[in-house]
Amino acid sequence: EIVAAIEAALADGPLKGRRIIVTSGPTHEPIDPVRYIANRSSGAQGTALARALAGLGAEVVFVTGPADVPPPAGVTVERVETARQMLAAVEDALPADAAVFAAAVADWRVANASASKVKKDGGGRLPALEFAENPDILARVAQMGDGRPALVVGFAAETDDVIAHATAKRGRKGCDWIVANDVSPATGIMGGTENAVTLITAEGAQSWPRMAKEQVANRLAQMIAEALA
Amino acid sequence: EIVAAIEAALADGPLKGRRIIVTSGPTHEPIDPVRYIANRSSGAQGTALARALAGLGAEVVFVTGPADVPPPAGVTVERVETARQMLAAVEDALPADAAVFAAAVADWRVANASASKVKKDGGGRLPALEFAENPDILARVAQMGDGRPALVVGFAAETDDVIAHATAKRGRKGCDWIVANDVSPATGIMGGTENAVTLITAEGAQSWPRMAKEQVANRLAQMIAEALA
Repeated sequence: EIVAAIEAALADGPLKGRRIIVTSGPTHEPIDPVRYIANRSSGAQGTALARALAGLGAEVVFVTGPADVPPPAGVTVERVETARQMLAAVEDALPADAAVFAAAVADWRVANASASKVKKDGGGRLPALEFAENPDILARVAQMGDGRPALVVGFAAETDDVIAHATAKRGRKGCDWIVANDVSPATGIMGGTENAVTLITAEGAQSWPRMAKEQVANRLAQMIAEALA
Repeated sequence: EIVAAIEAALADGPLKGRRIIVTSGPTHEPIDPVRYIANRSSGAQGTALARALAGLGAEVVFVTGPADVPPPAGVTVERVETARQMLAAVEDALPADAAVFAAAVADWRVANASASKVKKDGGGRLPALEFAENPDILARVAQMGDGRPALVVGFAAETDDVIAHATAKRGRKGCDWIVANDVSPATGIMGGTENAVTLITAEGAQSWPRMAKEQVANRLAQMIAEALA
């Protein structure tokens, strides 16, 4: 790991001098002190991408939720739990040349989270959770006026109609690229080691063959380097 | 690990010939293919207890949700995700001489879980989650007629009024012992390496000093061996 850190610090690749924010992992949204809402992101793809970008010489700020995989060496790690904390960490990390939002951010948080553990009342009554929409980190950064990163990349985890949903998402958010993947349980991608992505840009959709998440990361990092060149 | 497994298999302790079910870890209750409700159980205490019981010679069936710590060697591991799967695995593991329910089982599941990813509709509308109460695994086993384990032990994670809540829980569930702990965020117990427990039995409440989770496990295992002797 120390070797990796030194290599990254010394890396003299095409991204030398470029500052890139990468978000990764899930967010956890508390219900009460012991319960929370989570999502099935291992952080593997975001971690691989941060590693690949650092390997090309970028100064990477890695904003990560509670992920299964450890953060890569050679990057600045900012650990967060909730979507709102993630937004704050991203805002703190700006300005940047590029921002890649690979985290699986919870769309909603629990508006009436409890400071003490919610109890069953014995009468079979169910808890009344109220939800509030979380800030949309991707849209907020993509639609910045002054100080917008030159390249803003979002991820889309879809279970059906992947290209149509992801293309609509790109337009709605105002980002430059969307990296879309099909996370239907049958694909085994969520939590697995491989990924099958479709890259949506202004030019259209480009479907990549299924490959290891490291290969996806290397290919994306290379494209980011070309876009920033 | 292999050495530990062999040692456990050969262990000739006071629990030799006894079959003990231990549940551990959190459960995850799906909202849709990518989101779920979880709780902050690392599985550390249940894992330590299973290891300690195996070390005293017991045949341990370890029913575990998606925990942070790996299961111990020398036990039979049954991996589950939801509360209902955990109940089924416990029922399959019966009969047993003792059952210790250290898992942090979700009280509720989402009744209207979706087969495809729930989308924001763009109009700020919030998802309508409906909850259903999960089966109460501890109560169900503690209140079995024929085939009830001789010793049924529950855990109680409380944030306030620990002894009163845990004593009431023991009566309501019909179990023999409750191992209660204070999981208020200020204690640092949830996810930490130490535990401060109060043991509730028919004789009353016995508060133990704060100690490592391994020590709690060894002490409990010893008491279980004495109770089954």
